[in-house]
Amino acid sequence: MPELRKDPVLGRWIIIAKERSKRPTDFVIEKPKTKSGFCPLCPGHEKTTPSEVLVYGREPGMPYNSSSWQLRVVPNKYPALIIEGDLDKEGEGLYDRMNGIGAHEVVIESPGHDDNFTDLPHERMIMVFRSFRDRIRDLSKDKRFRYVMVFKNHGRAAGASLEHSHSQLVALPILPRMVTSELEGSLNYFKYKDRCIYCDIIRQEIRQKVRMVCENDSFVSLSPFAPRTPFEMWVMPKKHNSSYSDMTEHEMSSLTSIFSETLRRLNACIPNVPYNFVLHTQPLRSEPLEHYHWHFEIVPKLTSIAGFEWGSGFYINSMPPEDTARYLREIF
Amino acid sequence: MPELRKDPVLGRWIIIAKERSKRPTDFVIEKPKTKSGFCPLCPGHEKTTPSEVLVYGREPGMPYNSSSWQLRVVPNKYPALIIEGDLDKEGEGLYDRMNGIGAHEVVIESPGHDDNFTDLPHERMIMVFRSFRDRIRDLSKDKRFRYVMVFKNHGRAAGASLEHSHSQLVALPILPRMVTSELEGSLNYFKYKDRCIYCDIIRQEIRQKVRMVCENDSFVSLSPFAPRTPFEMWVMPKKHNSSYSDMTEHEMSSLTSIFSETLRRLNACIPNVPYNFVLHTQPLRSEPLEHYHWHFEIVPKLTSIAGFEWGSGFYINSMPPEDTARYLREIF
Repeated sequence: MPELRKDPVLGRWIIIAKERSKRPTDFVIEKPKTKSGFCPLCPGHEKTTPSEVLVYGREPGMPYNSSSWQLRVVPNKYPALIIEGDLDKEGEGLYDRMNGIGAHEVVIESPGHDDNFTDLPHERMIMVFRSFRDRIRDLSKDKRFRYVMVFKNHGRAAGASLEHSHSQLVALPILPRMVTSELEGSLNYFKYKDRCIYCDIIRQEIRQKVRMVCENDSFVSLSPFAPRTPFEMWVMPKKHNSSYSDMTEHEMSSLTSIFSETLRRLNACIPNVPYNFVLHTQPLRSEPLEHYHWHFEIVPKLTSIAGFEWGSGFYINSMPPEDTARYLREIF
Repeated sequence: MPELRKDPVLGRWIIIAKERSKRPTDFVIEKPKTKSGFCPLCPGHEKTTPSEVLVYGREPGMPYNSSSWQLRVVPNKYPALIIEGDLDKEGEGLYDRMNGIGAHEVVIESPGHDDNFTDLPHERMIMVFRSFRDRIRDLSKDKRFRYVMVFKNHGRAAGASLEHSHSQLVALPILPRMVTSELEGSLNYFKYKDRCIYCDIIRQEIRQKVRMVCENDSFVSLSPFAPRTPFEMWVMPKKHNSSYSDMTEHEMSSLTSIFSETLRRLNACIPNVPYNFVLHTQPLRSEPLEHYHWHFEIVPKLTSIAGFEWGSGFYINSMPPEDTARYLREIF
């Protein structure tokens, strides 16, 4: 059983997913890329993954878990958290822990083994964003869960362990610190100004133009004022909304367009750059929040500069976001 | 001029050190290790670094910046922050920034190019810890600085750009978030319990024994309850003290012994593992704090598992600290 543990000073929760690795020798440094030739995410190999929880594009009449699909969501075969059981919160002296109850799912974004997320045509990429919404809605029915973390690791340096393009959802019984810190910071601003800080950021960025990457009717893509790493980008809805799941179909389509353009610009600046993106949205079953604003954060993994930042939470960034935004705007 | 910028939502400061890199093409992914043959940190090359600000072990009569030394501290030739100038704090709409005033120094830990910090004999390693103290004391005289960050990147994957063993100091005009979060969390506990949370942690760990790696008369080395990564370790003084610079000579010697043993145990478990260590101590010129407790955090850089954790601050750790502590205890 995985376990959730809280750092007593910082309040930061971490998952101990013991089953995933057992011995120190499992930590091979700079493990070479292995090509076994077998991909469990490819069509025809549906039996090697747990049964699908969502499928799009199956032809009428074709059976459940058959190889007819355009996007599939399946539970992770090696989950960081497991779905069955009670939370059983308990203390251990001054420490807090609970059972690692949660869900860990894999969004198989396309049947094609070599398809790149960035290059998916509009009608295929939109399915990925729809699947996030549909899975968050479904997982929010489970009252044990407080948050669904949605993220993608693209490229080995960014943590992707399988080549076949996929993203992940982790439903959590706690709020991750990234969310609590944003909720607190934005609430403080709201109390003072009676405005959403993210709405103010968007207004200022549209006015100043210097950190804008691109925009359309519903979204902006920008380099944030204080980025952790060169080419960090945020994709944000122009209209105030704290919940990803409340998007309209039109907004879903606009999001797809701007996300695709943003990644194509990034990839044109730094070919094949590994990256992570993480959805930041409100806690499950929360009322709409006036002070919070859902968005995506895209963080390229530039290994030549990462280092102690990772362990300290303190960042030295060698490129001003005004420069990266200009490169990204002007690349095509 | 480098610049300090604050994330308006999170209050996290980052450094934009523009001079260090200029174009997107500078970000080579997985840059191969280059051996130019010339090391600016080696004896005889003192003229290729800025002039030393501290030296130990120079033979009597030998001149300043000569090649007679056992440890040298020099300003970083490519500093993230610069020492000359005023802070010039200013707003830009809702954003805050200030000039990147600070100091960035390199501790050249040994004359031997291939010497490994872990293997330094006691009388050499203690010089490194003394140099941290002496430089913090000296830098604290500059009233523009509020904190000195002390850290080491060991191994390329952990961000070391030079082979020759060295550590770094960065004097900052702001408090990094890692410090403010710890100060807040420990103060909350103190208000409630009237005790230092770190003292309570040490007492509980010594009693429970399961996460202890080693101890001596003045220090403990342990795997924290909620580690971000396998083999994360904290080295903490047993006696309450919020300031690294207040250590006695006896404590300095005990710290050296336990640090050396801790790294030797780590290296025996995972040979040549890259790691970062970061000193956590109180802000400069602060009165002694009842609620805060200085310590080192050692975070191995296991690239096979790092990934989206870096971008999200949310950690999935595949090894319980009770297991890693047992491996570390039993390895010799």
